[in-house]
Amino acid sequence: MRSLRKLGCEPGHDEMKMRQAQHQLSIATSGKGLVEITSQVKRWVAGQGIATGFLTLYCRHTSASLLIQENADPAVQTDLANFFEEIAPEDSKRYVHKTEGLDDMPAHIRAALSQTQLAIPVASGRMVLGTWQGIYLFEHRRAPRRREVVLHLLGE
Amino acid sequence: MRSLRKLGCEPGHDEMKMRQAQHQLSIATSGKGLVEITSQVKRWVAGQGIATGFLTLYCRHTSASLLIQENADPAVQTDLANFFEEIAPEDSKRYVHKTEGLDDMPAHIRAALSQTQLAIPVASGRMVLGTWQGIYLFEHRRAPRRREVVLHLLGE
Amino acid sequence: MRSLRKLGCEPGHDEMKMRQAQHQLSIATSGKGLVEITSQVKRWVAGQGIATGFLTLYCRHTSASLLIQENADPAVQTDLANFFEEIAPEDSKRYVHKTEGLDDMPAHIRAALSQTQLAIPVASGRMVLGTWQGIYLFEHRRAPRRREVVLHLLGE
Repeated sequence: MRSLRKLGCEPGHDEMKMRQAQHQLSIATSGKGLVEITSQVKRWVAGQGIATGFLTLYCRHTSASLLIQENADPAVQTDLANFFEEIAPEDSKRYVHKTEGLDDMPAHIRAALSQTQLAIPVASGRMVLGTWQGIYLFEHRRAPRRREVVLHLLGE
Repeated sequence: MRSLRKLGCEPGHDEMKMRQAQHQLSIATSGKGLVEITSQVKRWVAGQGIATGFLTLYCRHTSASLLIQENADPAVQTDLANFFEEIAPEDSKRYVHKTEGLDDMPAHIRAALSQTQLAIPVASGRMVLGTWQGIYLFEHRRAPRRREVVLHLLGE
Repeated sequence: MRSLRKLGCEPGHDEMKMRQAQHQLSIATSGKGLVEITSQVKRWVAGQGIATGFLTLYCRHTSASLLIQENADPAVQTDLANFFEEIAPEDSKRYVHKTEGLDDMPAHIRAALSQTQLAIPVASGRMVLGTWQGIYLFEHRRAPRRREVVLHLLGE
Protein backbone atom coordinates (compact mmCIF):
# COMPACT_ATOMS: atom_id res chain seq x y z
CA MET A 1 0.00 0.00 0.00
CA ARG A 2 2.76 2.39 0.95
CA SER A 3 4.25 2.45 -2.56
CA LEU A 4 0.85 2.82 -4.17
CA ARG A 5 0.10 5.79 -1.97
CA LYS A 6 3.17 7.53 -3.34
CA LEU A 7 1.96 6.79 -6.84
CA GLY A 8 -1.31 8.49 -6.16
CA CYS A 9 -3.36 5.30 -6.45
CA GLU A 10 -4.62 4.85 -2.90
CA PRO A 11 -8.37 5.00 -2.23
CA GLY A 12 -8.22 8.54 -0.86
CA HIS A 13 -6.83 9.78 -4.14
CA ASP A 14 -9.45 7.94 -6.12
CA GLU A 15 -12.28 9.49 -4.15
CA MET A 16 -11.03 12.95 -5.10
CA LYS A 17 -10.81 12.35 -8.80
CA MET A 18 -12.43 14.68 -11.31
CA ARG A 19 -15.98 13.78 -12.26
CA GLN A 20 -19.02 15.10 -14.10
CA ALA A 21 -22.76 15.30 -13.60
CA GLN A 22 -25.49 16.35 -16.03
CA HIS A 23 -29.10 17.24 -15.51
CA GLN A 24 -31.90 18.82 -17.51
CA LEU A 25 -34.22 21.40 -15.98
CA SER A 26 -37.67 21.81 -17.50
CA ILE A 27 -38.92 25.33 -16.83
CA ALA A 28 -42.48 26.51 -17.33
CA THR A 29 -42.71 30.11 -18.55
CA SER A 30 -45.84 32.26 -18.64
CA GLY A 31 -44.99 34.31 -21.73
CA LYS A 32 -42.44 37.09 -22.11
CA GLY A 33 -40.29 37.86 -19.09
CA LEU A 34 -37.60 36.63 -16.72
CA VAL A 35 -38.03 33.48 -14.63
CA GLU A 36 -35.56 33.11 -11.77
CA ILE A 37 -34.03 29.63 -11.58
CA THR A 38 -31.26 30.30 -9.02
CA SER A 39 -32.69 28.14 -6.23
CA GLN A 40 -33.32 25.09 -8.47
CA VAL A 41 -29.79 25.32 -9.84
CA LYS A 42 -28.29 25.79 -6.33
CA ARG A 43 -30.17 22.75 -5.04
CA TRP A 44 -28.94 20.53 -7.87
CA VAL A 45 -25.33 21.70 -7.52
CA ALA A 46 -25.42 21.12 -3.74
CA GLY A 47 -26.60 17.54 -4.28
CA GLN A 48 -23.66 16.51 -6.50
CA GLY A 49 -20.99 16.42 -3.80
CA ILE A 50 -18.53 18.43 -5.89
CA ALA A 51 -16.55 20.97 -3.87
CA THR A 52 -14.43 22.65 -6.57
CA GLY A 53 -15.35 22.86 -10.21
CA PHE A 54 -17.64 24.76 -12.50
CA LEU A 55 -21.13 24.64 -13.83
CA THR A 56 -22.27 25.22 -17.41
CA LEU A 57 -25.93 26.11 -18.07
CA TYR A 58 -27.13 25.64 -21.63
CA CYS A 59 -30.48 26.81 -23.05
CA ARG A 60 -31.73 24.54 -25.84
CA HIS A 61 -33.82 27.23 -27.58
CA THR A 62 -33.41 30.17 -29.94
CA SER A 63 -36.30 32.24 -28.62
CA ALA A 64 -35.41 32.04 -24.93
CA SER A 65 -32.06 32.75 -23.30
CA LEU A 66 -30.08 32.94 -20.06
CA LEU A 67 -29.04 35.96 -18.03
CA ILE A 68 -27.30 36.74 -14.76
CA GLN A 69 -29.07 39.75 -13.27
CA GLU A 70 -29.89 41.61 -10.07
CA ASN A 71 -32.33 39.62 -7.92
CA ALA A 72 -33.14 42.35 -5.37
CA ASP A 73 -35.55 44.92 -6.88
CA PRO A 74 -38.16 43.34 -9.24
CA ALA A 75 -38.31 46.66 -11.11
CA VAL A 76 -34.95 45.75 -12.67
CA GLN A 77 -36.66 42.88 -14.47
CA THR A 78 -39.45 45.15 -15.69
CA ASP A 79 -36.95 47.66 -17.06
CA LEU A 80 -34.86 44.93 -18.68
CA ALA A 81 -37.90 43.40 -20.36
CA ASN A 82 -38.97 46.85 -21.60
CA PHE A 83 -35.52 47.53 -22.98
CA PHE A 84 -35.45 44.28 -24.97
CA GLU A 85 -39.03 44.96 -26.15
CA GLU A 86 -38.02 48.37 -27.52
CA ILE A 87 -34.72 47.39 -29.06
CA ALA A 88 -36.32 44.59 -31.12
CA PRO A 89 -40.01 45.52 -31.39
CA GLU A 90 -42.77 43.39 -32.86
CA ASP A 91 -43.24 45.17 -36.16
CA SER A 92 -44.36 43.42 -39.35
CA LYS A 93 -42.44 45.88 -41.56
CA ARG A 94 -39.05 45.19 -40.00
CA TYR A 95 -38.71 41.47 -40.54
CA VAL A 96 -38.79 38.95 -43.39
CA HIS A 97 -39.24 35.98 -41.02
CA LYS A 98 -42.91 36.19 -39.98
CA THR A 99 -44.32 32.68 -40.53
CA GLU A 100 -44.03 31.68 -36.87
CA GLY A 101 -45.76 34.80 -35.57
CA LEU A 102 -44.79 38.45 -35.18
CA ASP A 103 -43.13 37.75 -31.84
CA ASP A 104 -40.74 35.12 -33.23
CA MET A 105 -38.10 37.20 -35.03
CA PRO A 106 -37.83 39.73 -32.16
CA ALA A 107 -37.38 36.69 -29.89
CA HIS A 108 -34.40 35.44 -31.95
CA ILE A 109 -32.79 38.90 -31.83
CA ARG A 110 -33.29 39.21 -28.07
CA ALA A 111 -31.75 35.75 -27.63
CA ALA A 112 -28.77 36.79 -29.77
CA LEU A 113 -28.24 39.87 -27.56
CA SER A 114 -28.34 37.85 -24.32
CA GLN A 115 -26.82 34.40 -23.62
CA THR A 116 -27.50 30.83 -24.75
CA GLN A 117 -24.99 29.54 -22.23
CA LEU A 118 -23.42 30.54 -18.90
CA ALA A 119 -20.40 29.10 -17.04
CA ILE A 120 -20.11 29.66 -13.30
CA PRO A 121 -17.18 28.49 -11.13
CA VAL A 122 -18.03 26.43 -8.02
CA ALA A 123 -16.02 26.80 -4.78
CA SER A 124 -16.75 25.07 -1.45
CA GLY A 125 -19.68 23.32 -3.14
CA ARG A 126 -21.40 26.57 -4.18
CA MET A 127 -21.55 28.71 -7.30
CA VAL A 128 -19.47 31.88 -6.82
CA LEU A 129 -22.47 34.15 -7.54
CA GLY A 130 -22.12 37.72 -6.29
CA THR A 131 -24.44 38.94 -3.50
CA TRP A 132 -27.00 40.42 -5.89
CA GLN A 133 -26.73 37.96 -8.74
CA GLY A 134 -29.57 35.67 -9.75
CA ILE A 135 -29.76 33.25 -12.69
CA TYR A 136 -32.70 33.85 -15.03
CA LEU A 137 -34.32 32.15 -17.96
CA PHE A 138 -35.47 34.91 -20.29
CA GLU A 139 -38.61 33.91 -22.23
CA HIS A 140 -38.99 35.95 -25.42
CA ARG A 141 -42.24 34.49 -26.84
CA ARG A 142 -45.79 35.64 -25.99
CA ALA A 143 -47.25 32.22 -25.21
CA PRO A 144 -46.33 30.12 -22.14
CA ARG A 145 -43.87 27.34 -22.95
CA ARG A 146 -41.70 24.60 -21.42
CA ARG A 147 -38.01 25.38 -21.78
CA GLU A 148 -35.10 22.96 -21.35
CA VAL A 149 -31.88 24.06 -19.66
CA VAL A 150 -29.03 21.53 -19.48
CA LEU A 151 -26.78 21.71 -16.41
CA HIS A 152 -23.26 20.28 -16.64
CA LEU A 153 -21.06 20.20 -13.55
CA LEU A 154 -17.42 19.17 -13.61
CA GLY A 155 -15.09 19.09 -10.63
CA GLU A 156 -13.84 17.10 -7.67
CA MET B 1 -4.96 -7.33 -10.02
CA ARG B 2 -7.86 -7.72 -7.65
CA SER B 3 -6.52 -5.14 -5.20
CA LEU B 4 -5.65 -2.71 -7.96
CA ARG B 5 -9.15 -2.97 -9.36
CA LYS B 6 -10.53 -1.84 -6.01
CA LEU B 7 -8.14 1.07 -6.06
CA GLY B 8 -9.49 2.18 -9.41
CA CYS B 9 -6.20 1.57 -11.23
CA GLU B 10 -7.12 -1.29 -13.56
CA PRO B 11 -7.05 -0.74 -17.32
CA GLY B 12 -10.83 -0.32 -17.55
CA HIS B 13 -10.66 2.64 -15.20
CA ASP B 14 -7.83 4.18 -17.14
CA GLU B 15 -9.78 4.06 -20.39
CA MET B 16 -12.57 6.10 -18.79
CA LYS B 17 -10.42 8.85 -17.38
CA MET B 18 -11.05 12.49 -18.15
CA ARG B 19 -9.23 13.81 -21.17
CA GLN B 20 -9.06 16.78 -23.51
CA ALA B 21 -8.82 17.46 -27.23
CA GLN B 22 -8.18 20.72 -29.07
CA HIS B 23 -8.60 21.68 -32.69
CA GLN B 24 -8.62 24.86 -34.75
CA LEU B 25 -11.18 25.43 -37.49
CA SER B 26 -10.26 27.80 -40.29
CA ILE B 27 -13.44 29.28 -41.75
CA ALA B 28 -13.66 31.20 -45.01
CA THR B 29 -16.21 34.01 -44.93
CA SER B 30 -17.53 35.95 -47.91
CA GLY B 31 -18.06 39.29 -46.20
CA LYS B 32 -20.77 40.27 -43.70
CA GLY B 33 -23.17 37.53 -42.63
CA LEU B 34 -23.60 34.26 -40.78
CA VAL B 35 -21.71 31.11 -41.77
CA GLU B 36 -23.11 27.89 -40.32
CA ILE B 37 -20.39 25.66 -38.85
CA THR B 38 -22.61 23.11 -37.04
CA SER B 39 -21.73 20.09 -39.22
CA GLN B 40 -17.94 20.68 -39.06
CA VAL B 41 -18.13 20.99 -35.28
CA LYS B 42 -20.35 17.90 -34.96
CA ARG B 43 -17.96 15.84 -37.09
CA TRP B 44 -14.95 16.81 -34.98
CA VAL B 45 -16.75 16.14 -31.68
CA ALA B 46 -17.94 12.73 -32.95
CA GLY B 47 -14.34 11.76 -33.82
CA GLN B 48 -12.93 12.35 -30.31
CA GLY B 49 -14.52 9.34 -28.62
CA ILE B 50 -15.75 11.41 -25.69
CA ALA B 51 -19.23 10.43 -24.50
CA THR B 52 -19.85 12.91 -21.68
CA GLY B 53 -18.22 16.30 -21.41
CA PHE B 54 -18.48 19.73 -22.88
CA LEU B 55 -17.18 21.72 -25.78
CA THR B 56 -15.88 25.29 -25.78
CA LEU B 57 -15.75 27.24 -29.06
CA TYR B 58 -13.53 30.32 -29.07
CA CYS B 59 -13.35 32.95 -31.83
CA ARG B 60 -9.87 34.53 -32.11
CA HIS B 61 -11.11 37.81 -33.60
CA THR B 62 -12.68 41.09 -32.53
CA SER B 63 -14.61 41.75 -35.75
CA ALA B 64 -16.25 38.33 -36.03
CA SER B 65 -18.17 36.44 -33.37
CA LEU B 66 -20.13 33.29 -32.52
CA LEU B 67 -23.87 32.76 -32.24
CA ILE B 68 -26.33 29.94 -31.62
CA GLN B 69 -29.36 30.61 -33.82
CA GLU B 70 -32.27 29.05 -35.64
CA ASN B 71 -31.11 26.94 -38.59
CA ALA B 72 -34.51 26.33 -40.21
CA ASP B 73 -35.67 29.48 -42.08
CA PRO B 74 -32.78 31.38 -43.79
CA ALA B 75 -34.83 34.59 -43.41
CA VAL B 76 -33.88 34.55 -39.72
CA GLN B 77 -30.27 35.13 -40.71
CA THR B 78 -31.24 37.98 -43.04
CA ASP B 79 -33.25 39.67 -40.29
CA LEU B 80 -30.47 39.16 -37.74
CA ALA B 81 -27.85 40.63 -40.07
CA ASN B 82 -30.14 43.61 -40.78
CA PHE B 83 -30.69 44.18 -37.07
CA PHE B 84 -26.95 44.27 -36.33
CA GLU B 85 -26.44 46.53 -39.37
CA GLU B 86 -28.97 49.05 -38.05
CA ILE B 87 -27.95 48.99 -34.41
CA ALA B 88 -24.32 49.79 -35.23
CA PRO B 89 -24.39 51.43 -38.67
CA GLU B 90 -21.38 52.38 -40.77
CA ASP B 91 -21.38 56.11 -40.22
CA SER B 92 -18.23 58.22 -40.25
CA LYS B 93 -19.70 60.74 -37.79
CA ARG B 94 -20.38 58.21 -35.06
CA TYR B 95 -16.91 56.80 -34.47
CA VAL B 96 -13.41 57.98 -33.61
CA HIS B 97 -11.79 54.70 -34.72
CA LYS B 98 -11.83 54.91 -38.51
CA THR B 99 -8.28 54.05 -39.63
CA GLU B 100 -9.08 50.43 -40.47
CA GLY B 101 -12.12 51.29 -42.57
CA LEU B 102 -15.65 52.48 -41.86
CA ASP B 103 -16.83 48.90 -41.33
CA ASP B 104 -14.30 48.17 -38.55
CA MET B 105 -15.76 49.96 -35.53
CA PRO B 106 -19.31 48.73 -36.22
CA ALA B 107 -17.75 45.24 -36.45
CA HIS B 108 -16.23 45.58 -32.96
CA ILE B 109 -19.59 46.71 -31.54
CA ARG B 110 -21.48 43.85 -33.19
CA ALA B 111 -18.89 41.40 -31.81
CA ALA B 112 -19.35 42.91 -28.31
CA LEU B 113 -23.13 42.40 -28.57
CA SER B 114 -22.81 38.76 -29.62
CA GLN B 115 -20.35 36.10 -28.33
CA THR B 116 -16.61 35.51 -28.57
CA GLN B 117 -17.03 32.12 -26.94
CA LEU B 118 -19.67 29.40 -26.50
CA ALA B 119 -19.76 26.35 -24.19
CA ILE B 120 -22.00 23.41 -25.10
CA PRO B 121 -22.43 20.27 -22.97
CA VAL B 122 -21.88 16.91 -24.70
CA ALA B 123 -24.00 13.85 -23.81
CA SER B 124 -23.87 10.41 -25.52
CA GLY B 125 -21.09 11.76 -27.73
CA ARG B 126 -23.19 14.66 -29.11
CA MET B 127 -23.62 18.33 -28.32
CA VAL B 128 -26.97 18.90 -26.56
CA LEU B 129 -28.13 21.39 -29.23
CA GLY B 130 -31.88 21.96 -29.37
CA THR B 131 -33.82 20.83 -32.47
CA TRP B 132 -33.62 24.22 -34.20
CA GLN B 133 -30.22 25.35 -32.98
CA GLY B 134 -27.27 25.83 -35.31
CA ILE B 135 -23.79 27.20 -34.53
CA TYR B 136 -22.76 30.21 -36.59
CA LEU B 137 -19.67 32.27 -37.17
CA PHE B 138 -20.85 35.85 -37.62
CA GLU B 139 -18.58 37.82 -39.96
CA HIS B 140 -18.84 41.58 -39.36
CA ARG B 141 -16.39 42.91 -41.99
CA ARG B 142 -17.20 43.68 -45.64
CA ALA B 143 -14.29 41.79 -47.20
CA PRO B 144 -14.00 37.97 -47.24
CA ARG B 145 -11.62 36.65 -44.58
CA ARG B 146 -10.26 33.49 -42.96
CA ARG B 147 -11.40 33.18 -39.35
CA GLU B 148 -9.97 30.90 -36.67
CA VAL B 149 -12.23 29.17 -34.17
CA VAL B 150 -10.56 27.05 -31.45
CA LEU B 151 -12.50 23.97 -30.28
CA HIS B 152 -11.73 22.54 -26.85
CA LEU B 153 -13.43 19.34 -25.72
CA LEU B 154 -13.11 17.91 -22.22
CA GLY B 155 -14.77 14.78 -20.96
CA GLU B 156 -14.57 11.01 -20.65
CA MET C 1 6.93 -0.83 -11.70
CA ARG C 2 6.67 -2.16 -15.22
CA SER C 3 3.17 -3.49 -14.72
CA LEU C 4 2.04 -0.31 -12.99
CA ARG C 5 3.31 1.73 -15.90
CA LYS C 6 1.03 -0.20 -18.23
CA LEU C 7 -1.86 0.49 -15.91
CA GLY C 8 -1.23 4.21 -16.11
CA CYS C 9 -0.34 4.50 -12.43
CA GLU C 10 3.34 5.37 -12.60
CA PRO C 11 4.51 8.76 -11.30
CA GLY C 12 4.72 10.25 -14.80
CA HIS C 13 1.03 9.60 -15.29
CA ASP C 14 0.15 11.09 -11.96
CA GLU C 15 1.98 14.32 -12.75
CA MET C 16 -0.13 14.72 -15.89
CA LYS C 17 -3.49 14.28 -14.24
CA MET C 18 -6.27 16.80 -14.63
CA ARG C 19 -6.38 19.49 -11.97
CA GLN C 20 -7.96 22.82 -11.12
CA ALA C 21 -6.91 26.20 -9.78
CA GLN C 22 -9.05 29.13 -8.64
CA HIS C 23 -8.18 32.71 -7.92
CA GLN C 24 -10.04 35.97 -7.35
CA LEU C 25 -8.87 39.22 -8.95
CA SER C 26 -9.83 42.46 -7.25
CA ILE C 27 -9.93 45.23 -9.84
CA ALA C 28 -10.10 48.94 -9.08
CA THR C 29 -12.18 50.89 -11.59
CA SER C 30 -12.31 54.67 -11.95
CA GLY C 31 -15.92 55.00 -13.08
CA LYS C 32 -17.44 54.10 -16.43
CA GLY C 33 -15.14 52.52 -19.00
CA LEU C 34 -13.03 49.51 -19.91
CA VAL C 35 -10.13 48.34 -17.73
CA GLU C 36 -7.73 45.94 -19.43
CA ILE C 37 -6.89 42.92 -17.28
CA THR C 38 -5.10 40.77 -19.90
CA SER C 39 -1.64 40.91 -18.32
CA GLN C 40 -2.85 40.05 -14.79
CA VAL C 41 -4.81 37.10 -16.15
CA LYS C 42 -1.86 35.94 -18.30
CA ARG C 43 0.49 36.08 -15.32
CA TRP C 44 -1.82 34.00 -13.13
CA VAL C 45 -2.41 31.39 -15.87
CA ALA C 46 1.36 31.11 -16.53
CA GLY C 47 1.99 30.43 -12.82
CA GLN C 48 -0.35 27.41 -12.60
CA GLY C 49 1.80 24.96 -14.57
CA ILE C 50 -1.13 23.83 -16.70
CA ALA C 51 -0.22 23.27 -20.35
CA THR C 52 -3.58 22.29 -21.88
CA GLY C 53 -6.94 23.26 -20.50
CA PHE C 54 -9.23 26.22 -20.34
CA LEU C 55 -9.89 29.26 -18.24
CA THR C 56 -13.24 30.62 -17.09
CA LEU C 57 -13.50 34.27 -15.96
CA TYR C 58 -16.55 35.16 -13.92
CA CYS C 59 -17.65 38.69 -12.94
CA ARG C 60 -19.49 38.76 -9.59
CA HIS C 61 -21.49 41.92 -10.37
CA THR C 62 -24.58 43.01 -12.27
CA SER C 63 -23.39 46.53 -13.10
CA ALA C 64 -19.98 45.56 -14.51
CA SER C 65 -19.19 42.94 -17.12
CA LEU C 66 -16.49 41.23 -19.18
CA LEU C 67 -15.54 41.73 -22.81
CA ILE C 68 -12.92 40.51 -25.27
CA GLN C 69 -12.01 43.47 -27.46
CA GLU C 70 -9.31 45.02 -29.63
CA ASN C 71 -6.33 46.15 -27.57
CA ALA C 72 -4.50 48.11 -30.26
CA ASP C 73 -6.21 51.49 -30.84
CA PRO C 74 -7.58 53.08 -27.61
CA ALA C 75 -10.22 54.85 -29.74
CA VAL C 76 -12.02 51.51 -30.01
CA GLN C 77 -12.69 51.65 -26.27
CA THR C 78 -13.98 55.22 -26.53
CA ASP C 79 -16.37 54.27 -29.32
CA LEU C 80 -17.53 51.15 -27.47
CA ALA C 81 -18.21 53.12 -24.30
CA ASN C 82 -20.11 55.75 -26.31
CA PHE C 83 -22.20 53.07 -28.01
CA PHE C 84 -23.23 51.50 -24.69
CA GLU C 85 -23.93 54.98 -23.29
CA GLU C 86 -26.32 55.77 -26.16
CA ILE C 87 -28.07 52.44 -26.35
CA ALA C 88 -29.01 52.54 -22.66
CA PRO C 89 -28.89 56.21 -21.68
CA GLU C 90 -29.27 57.64 -18.19
CA ASP C 91 -32.81 58.98 -18.45
CA SER C 92 -35.18 59.18 -15.49
CA LYS C 93 -38.25 58.72 -17.72
CA ARG C 94 -37.16 55.40 -19.15
CA TYR C 95 -36.76 53.32 -16.02
CA VAL C 96 -38.77 52.24 -12.99
CA HIS C 97 -35.67 51.16 -11.05
CA LYS C 98 -34.12 54.45 -9.89
CA THR C 99 -33.47 54.00 -6.15
CA GLU C 100 -29.78 53.18 -6.59
CA GLY C 101 -29.08 56.18 -8.81
CA LEU C 102 -29.84 57.08 -12.42
CA ASP C 103 -26.75 55.23 -13.63
CA ASP C 104 -27.78 51.89 -12.07
CA MET C 105 -30.49 50.62 -14.45
CA PRO C 106 -28.48 51.54 -17.57
CA ALA C 107 -25.59 49.63 -15.95
CA HIS C 108 -27.71 46.48 -15.61
CA ILE C 109 -28.79 46.72 -19.25
CA ARG C 110 -25.20 47.22 -20.47
CA ALA C 111 -24.13 44.21 -18.40
CA ALA C 112 -26.95 42.14 -19.96
CA LEU C 113 -25.75 43.12 -23.45
CA SER C 114 -22.12 42.17 -22.73
CA GLN C 115 -20.80 39.16 -20.76
CA THR C 116 -20.81 38.05 -17.13
CA GLN C 117 -18.50 35.18 -17.95
CA LEU C 118 -15.88 34.21 -20.54
CA ALA C 119 -14.23 30.85 -21.29
CA ILE C 120 -10.87 30.78 -23.06
CA PRO C 121 -9.00 27.59 -24.07
CA VAL C 122 -5.37 27.28 -22.93
CA ALA C 123 -2.73 25.63 -25.16
CA SER C 124 1.03 25.37 -24.44
CA GLY C 125 0.38 27.13 -21.13
CA ARG C 126 -1.19 30.22 -22.74
CA MET C 127 -4.69 31.45 -23.49
CA VAL C 128 -5.42 31.15 -27.22
CA LEU C 129 -6.19 34.87 -27.55
CA GLY C 130 -6.00 36.27 -31.07
CA THR C 131 -3.30 38.82 -31.91
CA TRP C 132 -5.51 41.84 -31.26
CA GLN C 133 -7.62 40.47 -28.44
CA GLY C 134 -7.50 41.88 -24.92
CA ILE C 135 -9.63 40.95 -21.89
CA TYR C 136 -11.51 43.84 -20.33
CA LEU C 137 -13.57 44.50 -17.26
CA PHE C 138 -16.32 46.90 -18.32
CA GLU C 139 -17.36 49.22 -15.46
CA HIS C 140 -20.89 50.58 -15.99
CA ARG C 141 -21.28 52.76 -12.87
CA ARG C 142 -20.18 56.41 -12.50
CA ALA C 143 -18.29 56.03 -9.22
CA PRO C 144 -14.98 54.14 -8.85
CA ARG C 145 -15.43 50.66 -7.39
CA ARG C 146 -13.61 47.43 -6.55
CA ARG C 147 -14.79 44.57 -8.75
CA GLU C 148 -14.24 40.85 -8.17
CA VAL C 149 -13.47 38.53 -11.06
CA VAL C 150 -13.11 34.80 -10.30
CA LEU C 151 -10.62 32.85 -12.43
CA HIS C 152 -11.04 29.10 -12.75
CA LEU C 153 -8.46 27.06 -14.64
CA LEU C 154 -8.85 23.38 -15.41
CA GLY C 155 -6.38 21.24 -17.32
CA GLU C 156 -3.25 19.13 -17.15
